[in-house]
Amino acid sequence: MDHIRRNERLSVMTKVLMDAPNRIFTLGTFCEMFKSAKSSLSEDIDILRGLFDEFDLGVLDTVTGAAGGVRYRPILKAEAALNSVNEVAMMLSAPGRILPGGFIYMADILAMPDVVEKMGNIIASQYYRQEPDFVLTMETKGIPVAMMTAKALGVPMVIVRRDSKVYEGPAVNINYISGSHGRIETMSLSRRAVREGQKALIVDDFMRAGGTGRGMVDMMREFSVTVVGICVLMSTADPAKKRVDGVRSLLTLESVDENAGTALIRPASWLTQNARRQS
Amino acid sequence: MDHIRRNERLSVMTKVLMDAPNRIFTLGTFCEMFKSAKSSLSEDIDILRGLFDEFDLGVLDTVTGAAGGVRYRPILKAEAALNSVNEVAMMLSAPGRILPGGFIYMADILAMPDVVEKMGNIIASQYYRQEPDFVLTMETKGIPVAMMTAKALGVPMVIVRRDSKVYEGPAVNINYISGSHGRIETMSLSRRAVREGQKALIVDDFMRAGGTGRGMVDMMREFSVTVVGICVLMSTADPAKKRVDGVRSLLTLESVDENAGTALIRPASWLTQNARRQS
Repeated sequence: MDHIRRNERLSVMTKVLMDAPNRIFTLGTFCEMFKSAKSSLSEDIDILRGLFDEFDLGVLDTVTGAAGGVRYRPILKAEAALNSVNEVAMMLSAPGRILPGGFIYMADILAMPDVVEKMGNIIASQYYRQEPDFVLTMETKGIPVAMMTAKALGVPMVIVRRDSKVYEGPAVNINYISGSHGRIETMSLSRRAVREGQKALIVDDFMRAGGTGRGMVDMMREFSVTVVGICVLMSTADPAKKRVDGVRSLLTLESVDENAGTALIRPASWLTQNARRQS
Repeated sequence: MDHIRRNERLSVMTKVLMDAPNRIFTLGTFCEMFKSAKSSLSEDIDILRGLFDEFDLGVLDTVTGAAGGVRYRPILKAEAALNSVNEVAMMLSAPGRILPGGFIYMADILAMPDVVEKMGNIIASQYYRQEPDFVLTMETKGIPVAMMTAKALGVPMVIVRRDSKVYEGPAVNINYISGSHGRIETMSLSRRAVREGQKALIVDDFMRAGGTGRGMVDMMREFSVTVVGICVLMSTADPAKKRVDGVRSLLTLESVDENAGTALIRPASWLTQNARRQS
């Protein structure tokens, strides 16, 4: 009987922990759920921790202290992260994706749940220590990956709009220089969307000159919010100097040959270095 | 030793199945993963099926035939679904959400990963039989819940834009009557986003008159795509007759009292009926 009970507990705990990444569950929560002793659950967690590590399913942490417990984070090992990003690089480099003007068609890949969830997990894994209170993104294409990053961090997402909307209430509008067009545009954020003193992680799909990123940083200053990081799925190698500092990306767009219809896209060097260090 | 192996398998299978909802995994996949016999894995799956049912974690189906295997769907029991939707109804009815013009501030709730994932799972559970090839939504606020619906169905999401964009390539533009403004607006969808003969499930955050929904249906006709369902998080009780037929919603906005700053929001009647029938 007892090993059946353990089977049950381990599977159900896996589900419960995975459903709420980065949330701390006390042992007491599981004791109540399973009507089991704390000692059995401690053993369960040790088994799960080993399993998750062995099968590269993420990291199970034990958090000590008054608010202590166990916490799941979908952190991949460096080599698996690199492989996942590399797969996306290959998808984006495939023939037929170059549009007039040298743009790359990414919309389909940016809306595949399994792909953006993996990318969101990899982005989140770089910012757990900074403890952001929310993930900020600018509509539209970056929303899915920002959403999945927020899920992995266990925080809400906040969307900056291009115009203020009647259904978002009073809003702060700022102007910014759009990188791709080099012209002045407006972005808008509802006054009630964030609170003074919070910490923001900015996530977006693509960065060229960094004007939009800079706009989001300026917007956060208007709200007295600290930006703890900026991460994009893909940034261009050129210009190397963006309008904001401290930008991390998962992919680097090295070059586009519009005539040949090809693009050179590779995982960012920090991913390669991490994988080399860990192996 | 053997019961440790079973523990391992059950937890890892839980994780693998949950990561890819609605995907069919053959027993062979798991045999390779664990170096175990098919008979052991069949037993594992029977145990998991019972567990998932007992703890209301979703449904594990065995699919027979040549492409057969096991498949996980995050389908909640009717009562749990009703409770989840009811929680959202209460959040949205809370004081302070009524904006000038009688609009309800929903943007924060629509960007909470745990909330939209639950809502997405509940929406998806109504359309597994229709086997949509993708989830269609119109930017912006509906994207997170559409994304989570797509994840639960194991299909991509497709986003209709307000304007055609240089980075989406050739696009089909159509005009539609915006319900909230009663004026002619444009929506745009990249030519390469969907293929003739596919099946679409339309998901959005809110419907009043149904003009946007109707526009998306018209758009799908341009692409020779069949619409297998339309589901929104919240629709207004008035007008009862929308510009599109067959709309399902999770929440009904009965009335808004702008002066008192209150709104009457309740779970849609089909949810209440399902819960009553099941109990």
